[in-house]
Amino acid sequence: MKQFHHFLPVSTSGKGLYEITGEVCGWVRQTGLVSGLLTLFVQHTSASLVVQENADPDVVADLETFLERLAPEDNRLYRHTIEGSDDMPAHIRAALTQTHLSIPLAAGRLALGAWQGIYLFEHRGARCRRTVALHLIGE
Amino acid sequence: MKQFHHFLPVSTSGKGLYEITGEVCGWVRQTGLVSGLLTLFVQHTSASLVVQENADPDVVADLETFLERLAPEDNRLYRHTIEGSDDMPAHIRAALTQTHLSIPLAAGRLALGAWQGIYLFEHRGARCRRTVALHLIGE
Amino acid sequence: MKQFHHFLPVSTSGKGLYEITGEVCGWVRQTGLVSGLLTLFVQHTSASLVVQENADPDVVADLETFLERLAPEDNRLYRHTIEGSDDMPAHIRAALTQTHLSIPLAAGRLALGAWQGIYLFEHRGARCRRTVALHLIGE
Repeated sequence: MKQFHHFLPVSTSGKGLYEITGEVCGWVRQTGLVSGLLTLFVQHTSASLVVQENADPDVVADLETFLERLAPEDNRLYRHTIEGSDDMPAHIRAALTQTHLSIPLAAGRLALGAWQGIYLFEHRGARCRRTVALHLIGE
Repeated sequence: MKQFHHFLPVSTSGKGLYEITGEVCGWVRQTGLVSGLLTLFVQHTSASLVVQENADPDVVADLETFLERLAPEDNRLYRHTIEGSDDMPAHIRAALTQTHLSIPLAAGRLALGAWQGIYLFEHRGARCRRTVALHLIGE
Repeated sequence: MKQFHHFLPVSTSGKGLYEITGEVCGWVRQTGLVSGLLTLFVQHTSASLVVQENADPDVVADLETFLERLAPEDNRLYRHTIEGSDDMPAHIRAALTQTHLSIPLAAGRLALGAWQGIYLFEHRGARCRRTVALHLIGE
């Protein structure tokens, strides 16, 4: 049994979902492992991770809009306003989605379904440099 | 250290929570491992996973109703409507719950609390065949 | 490759977020492992886990208030009312946040970002004794 670590940088330019499936699969391939468990952990509390449909781009746009309505940018709703009107909604949106994901690696490929993509979900308006910690254990 | 994979099929017949605790525990037992980490990953973006109370069936019914209100079937709210009025709400409900779960296996049993059951949460109205990828690592 | 288990007790005194980063890091240090994967699993369905900002305490207070509004204590909304008006909202809030977390351990430290803390999120009003199952695999 072996394990590998990697810190994947992701540059974002405003709210939305950024697909990282290709980068993640590429790194897994480089390790040479064919069976195991991959874990992704986002090192931020105003960005998160989701697995979502990557066929119709309207899906991730609708998910973004839904969360915009659910946790609106409205300073009257929050105490924590000093980092900008998008910051507290960002923390809420991160808490409602995922900080981490674990995906089995079986027979040389990640066990993603046919239409599943891995996304970093950016919840802040400004350009950000995000990091996703990757861990793979297996053989 | 050893690891095992399994792809668990789950047939659903409409929205709701389908308990899979028994099937999952049965498979874990078959592997012969007594200490390790179990991971479940649902290979779909319109179904998800949750751990919930399995004592009073009203709990999962209320959870279902809550999400029905939170992300209603109303085409005016979404761009992605071509797969039916239940599809985009299904993606939202999946994003708000879990794509995967990891549960320690300690002293021969999964570390579930007294009232915790593992559920596949179906978010679409039609009959579906779902698959949950299972991975167990340990000894 | 080695693995370790621990059951961490957490005493709560009403709704809110209880930081457990220190206890968790302390246990990880005791195991002597420097590279691996840590998993936390909460053995309850009316408490949950989140990673959130631990710099400004207003963040977790706002998250708490947001969920209070989203899943209010109002018996008219739920069938499951026999365990008190805070119980069904607690199950919903648990389902919307996390039952488990996995965090890589790299170069002797958990891969938490600069402002990330690990919290047990208590959703019930009364004093409770909670247990978080910890599992660490690595070397």
